[in-house]
Amino acid sequence: MASKNQLKLIRALGQKKYRKQYGQYLVQGEKNVLELLVAGIKLDALFATPQFIEQNQSALKHIDVIETQEEELTKVSTLVSNNAAIAIVPIPEEAKIDLSGWVLALDGVSDPGNLGTIIRVADWYGFKQIVLSETCADQFNPKTISATMGSFVRVNSLRTNLHGLLSHYNGPVYGAFLNGENVHRTVFTDKGVLVMGSESHGISPEIEALVTHKITIPAFGGAESLNVAMATGIIVDNIKRHS
Amino acid sequence: MASKNQLKLIRALGQKKYRKQYGQYLVQGEKNVLELLVAGIKLDALFATPQFIEQNQSALKHIDVIETQEEELTKVSTLVSNNAAIAIVPIPEEAKIDLSGWVLALDGVSDPGNLGTIIRVADWYGFKQIVLSETCADQFNPKTISATMGSFVRVNSLRTNLHGLLSHYNGPVYGAFLNGENVHRTVFTDKGVLVMGSESHGISPEIEALVTHKITIPAFGGAESLNVAMATGIIVDNIKRHS
Repeated sequence: MASKNQLKLIRALGQKKYRKQYGQYLVQGEKNVLELLVAGIKLDALFATPQFIEQNQSALKHIDVIETQEEELTKVSTLVSNNAAIAIVPIPEEAKIDLSGWVLALDGVSDPGNLGTIIRVADWYGFKQIVLSETCADQFNPKTISATMGSFVRVNSLRTNLHGLLSHYNGPVYGAFLNGENVHRTVFTDKGVLVMGSESHGISPEIEALVTHKITIPAFGGAESLNVAMATGIIVDNIKRHS
Repeated sequence: MASKNQLKLIRALGQKKYRKQYGQYLVQGEKNVLELLVAGIKLDALFATPQFIEQNQSALKHIDVIETQEEELTKVSTLVSNNAAIAIVPIPEEAKIDLSGWVLALDGVSDPGNLGTIIRVADWYGFKQIVLSETCADQFNPKTISATMGSFVRVNSLRTNLHGLLSHYNGPVYGAFLNGENVHRTVFTDKGVLVMGSESHGISPEIEALVTHKITIPAFGGAESLNVAMATGIIVDNIKRHS
């Protein structure tokens, strides 16, 4: 059974300041917790319902699980449903940014759900890293982790001074704008950086100054814009179709 | 000022049974209400804050607006924020389905937010109609309308017996599966139907039997699947890049 202090900790880790203070984050829900176990990522604690433990015996073989009723987990979870398991995971040391291949960089994507959806589509297309400006949503926000549908175990999100990073980068920097070159006609290079901007303001002026290729998804109808996660998926598909 | 009965009606229209009973639906939030006014769609009632009325005088010129405080609107709205305006709109008579060009058909897309996001991306790519199976989410659900970001005024969602419709269709029927032809290599015809399946079960067996071309977005990484709205956007982009 989970102790009161453990349940209190879970509840606290829903908030960024406690994630920072304790160096831990939450992974909630069946799919995401199973991805964590399959990936062999070190856990600080795992709480799960008797049913979850019963159904996933082999994945849980070498793990200490704290059996907890679903009602208890739902009380402290940030999710409304799907609380068969909650893991407390240490926030990893940040890996070094690898600029040798294609790099996806986000400039001020502030919605946690959008960030998670972008991590999922980046994983689909084989990206191992995403670079985040300091103005992006927290990659350890529970809504972000949930929206990745397990892809957070395969894609490292690396928060950095994006302007500093791109200032020292010699390859092409593609940026998504509403008035760039038609992405269907763009001949993408073998490597480069793709920058996607914030939901409300797009790419910031200081990053825009470092973009070498402005690109656009051509519009055929009346919508003014696309959601940033959708736009990311479509542009990455255009990049990868030639590889 | 809005009357008690009017506020009660707004609250009721958050539910499908009352939308059906009264033949009306809600459009909430600044962006969506403005799109409605610009499109000249007939309203049954419009409630708006003094600020909204002040800021949109020209759009509101020939409209009777019921001035209402934001707190009142928030109380009866299904949205947590962004309640500067709420319109009550008559559910239109269903238009006839036009199968002469490219048609997007959804088979059991049950999440209202996904449906709205699909309507938005369909609008971006110039689709005027989307065909919905009877198992899809309600296109007049407030979450759907919100997620369209105004595109609901340009894209007609037409609910029908999808199996019956496709049984009498002579053109190519493309369907998204996890084991179809690579969409990057597919040579799309000038017209056809694209079927996207449900979030959890994909395309149903009875519709699968009518699909003439199974297609797939190629995976380069570890994610098991893409969100259905994301997948729709990516496939439609592949269709439209040749047009």
